[in-house]
Amino acid sequence: MEEQSIQVELSTAKKEKPQTDQLEFGRTFTDHMFVMDYSVTDGWHNAKILPYQPISVDPAAMIFHYGQSVFEGLKAFRTPSGEVQLFRPRKNFERMNKSNERLVIPPIDEDFVLQALKKLIEIDQDWVPDTEGTSLYIRPFVFATEPFLGVAPSHQYKFMIILSPVGSYYKEGINPVKIAVEDTYVRAVKGGTGEAKTGGNYASSLIAQEVVSKKGYTQVLWLDGVEKKYIEEVGSMNVFFKIDGEVVTPKLNGSILAGVTRDSVIQLLKHWDVPVVERRIGMQELADAHEAGLLEEAFGSGTAAVISPIGALGWNGKEYTINGGKTGEISKRIYDTITGIQYGKLEDPLNWVEPITSKAKVNQ
Amino acid sequence: MEEQSIQVELSTAKKEKPQTDQLEFGRTFTDHMFVMDYSVTDGWHNAKILPYQPISVDPAAMIFHYGQSVFEGLKAFRTPSGEVQLFRPRKNFERMNKSNERLVIPPIDEDFVLQALKKLIEIDQDWVPDTEGTSLYIRPFVFATEPFLGVAPSHQYKFMIILSPVGSYYKEGINPVKIAVEDTYVRAVKGGTGEAKTGGNYASSLIAQEVVSKKGYTQVLWLDGVEKKYIEEVGSMNVFFKIDGEVVTPKLNGSILAGVTRDSVIQLLKHWDVPVVERRIGMQELADAHEAGLLEEAFGSGTAAVISPIGALGWNGKEYTINGGKTGEISKRIYDTITGIQYGKLEDPLNWVEPITSKAKVNQ
Ligand SMILES: Cc1ncc(COP(=O)(O)O)c(C=O)c1O
Ligand SMILES: Cc1ncc(COP(=O)(O)O)c(C=O)c1O
Repeated sequence: MEEQSIQVELSTAKKEKPQTDQLEFGRTFTDHMFVMDYSVTDGWHNAKILPYQPISVDPAAMIFHYGQSVFEGLKAFRTPSGEVQLFRPRKNFERMNKSNERLVIPPIDEDFVLQALKKLIEIDQDWVPDTEGTSLYIRPFVFATEPFLGVAPSHQYKFMIILSPVGSYYKEGINPVKIAVEDTYVRAVKGGTGEAKTGGNYASSLIAQEVVSKKGYTQVLWLDGVEKKYIEEVGSMNVFFKIDGEVVTPKLNGSILAGVTRDSVIQLLKHWDVPVVERRIGMQELADAHEAGLLEEAFGSGTAAVISPIGALGWNGKEYTINGGKTGEISKRIYDTITGIQYGKLEDPLNWVEPITSKAKVNQ
Repeated sequence: MEEQSIQVELSTAKKEKPQTDQLEFGRTFTDHMFVMDYSVTDGWHNAKILPYQPISVDPAAMIFHYGQSVFEGLKAFRTPSGEVQLFRPRKNFERMNKSNERLVIPPIDEDFVLQALKKLIEIDQDWVPDTEGTSLYIRPFVFATEPFLGVAPSHQYKFMIILSPVGSYYKEGINPVKIAVEDTYVRAVKGGTGEAKTGGNYASSLIAQEVVSKKGYTQVLWLDGVEKKYIEEVGSMNVFFKIDGEVVTPKLNGSILAGVTRDSVIQLLKHWDVPVVERRIGMQELADAHEAGLLEEAFGSGTAAVISPIGALGWNGKEYTINGGKTGEISKRIYDTITGIQYGKLEDPLNWVEPITSKAKVNQ
């Protein structure tokens, strides 16, 4: 495995690139993809970069039946000098292996996969957009392919990476969203798969998303699945509140995804000497803080939107407006700093950025 | 939609059929498959019976990322006179639509899909085995195909039916299994997807299955995800206990799958005037009943094994042997009756059997 080489087949017909001011999130894919296979006898093997194309899958492949799958999401950015760089990519492949463990999927070689990703981006580097707020979204994923109808871990898997040039998540930069607590449905529970990035968590969440959308909210704020009292996270973001000068975020408790952006926010606040605490946060506590005029800011954190200020919170038939529905000071400062580092416009004091060197030669 | 016709393309190269005494569950598939597509503009369309073959799927298809999928499992049986019949197929397509609703998947036309299934089996009827204990396992399933990276219900789906000749689930007919409570991991919780037949539930359960297997148990007995006190179900079976002359089974509470076999067992017991109750059952209550010598029988119910007697139950480091580890009287009577009806060897007093008529002409 250590010395696995990557076979490269380049696309002959290059696709037309979308205009960078018209990029929709997750709809356009680049010219190439990375793929490798797993079998019990060979481990991970058959690593290839191929023209982006449909794959051939047996209808009995276990992914269609028993949902054994894991995915990741990270981004590459174009710097002012035209270089391409990744933001904390190792964190994503580490998390992928944690998710794999929960889903009984064999681990990937994190170094090898990062090397494969760099090679893939190098080949498709013209696809990394350079307009303000745009980037290349990277989707590594793994799924069960053994053609077998029986509830057991698969003996065969496919790991892939696909790339999608994406625009800014919000039309006008950093725009506050309205979120709502939905307590009929549950996303995850301790002992379940909440802390793994696996398809089932997202499939399970769709119905609540539909419910809150109809009431005019953008995203669901999930409470714990047991007592339905404690705040967990928001759809595809972790969540932070500034209460009476202190920034708080739910502690990782086994049912919350350990966001890379969440970790970056915490590190940055500590670096700035801003008080930040990871602990259990009751929804009632939050409402009380609002009542007392102490809920100063709220924001979500995630790869797609980076920082997403929360302007209003719906719960139990009431709506709580936060910071007059406007982006707060600390939210703005974190957003500006993280994006500044990502695009190579600011110093990188915490060593988050990983350049894509052009050293590796593509063997064709 | 009502008048949708099914296009048929017959396979030219017929596969070799496995010997019916060597059938493994879920590994061999017949010569044909049914497939249809869904789009927002056309609804379900493009219904086809095709030679069994791999399908072509975009790597960005949502099934690989967000797990939006539902499946079913039922069986066709060969009667002594050589006919082929289905067991309560409408229940499965009804349940599929309930699962679809939870997973925000558009409903299927239950009548049309049943008609398609009958046509498919007619074409592959030589694949229905006739040895004792064998049958044709039927797997209808639906999954999200839209190539889009974003957490939202897909706008495109594929519905398929594949068929697999299967042997008796246990080597020697009705063989007691050992099951164990595993309380680190949770399969489902009220408000989650436990009552839907969706991949994520099964993916989530694999790790606990691994844990109990290492301790010599066949299956996991799941407790409720909130208090971890009340019995839910067993891996891919519902569960029944005979306590002091009364048969009890956990009440459908929102996190348990409403098994077709479970319903058949309840109906049959009522038909026989055997006391049967659906209610909440505590694991401690069960242990106490065992202590008092009142836990007379335990068995699982599901399409694959029909009835599976439980000979021993592991919980909290103790092992509780039930009925001396042997198949109980009521378990045996239910098994014999349901299989007798399925194979057309016994009267069908509750109208469960649906023959596959040969009237529909195959248009080629
Ligand atoms: C459920 C969930 N929570 C939180 C996050 C944020 O994680 P990250 O900052 O690593 O993107 C995501 C997105 O990845 C997510 O899907
Ligand atoms: C989780 C679960 N419970 C129970 C059952 C039993 O249901 P049925 O009797 O419809 O096969 C199954 C199998 O379908 C299952 O997957």
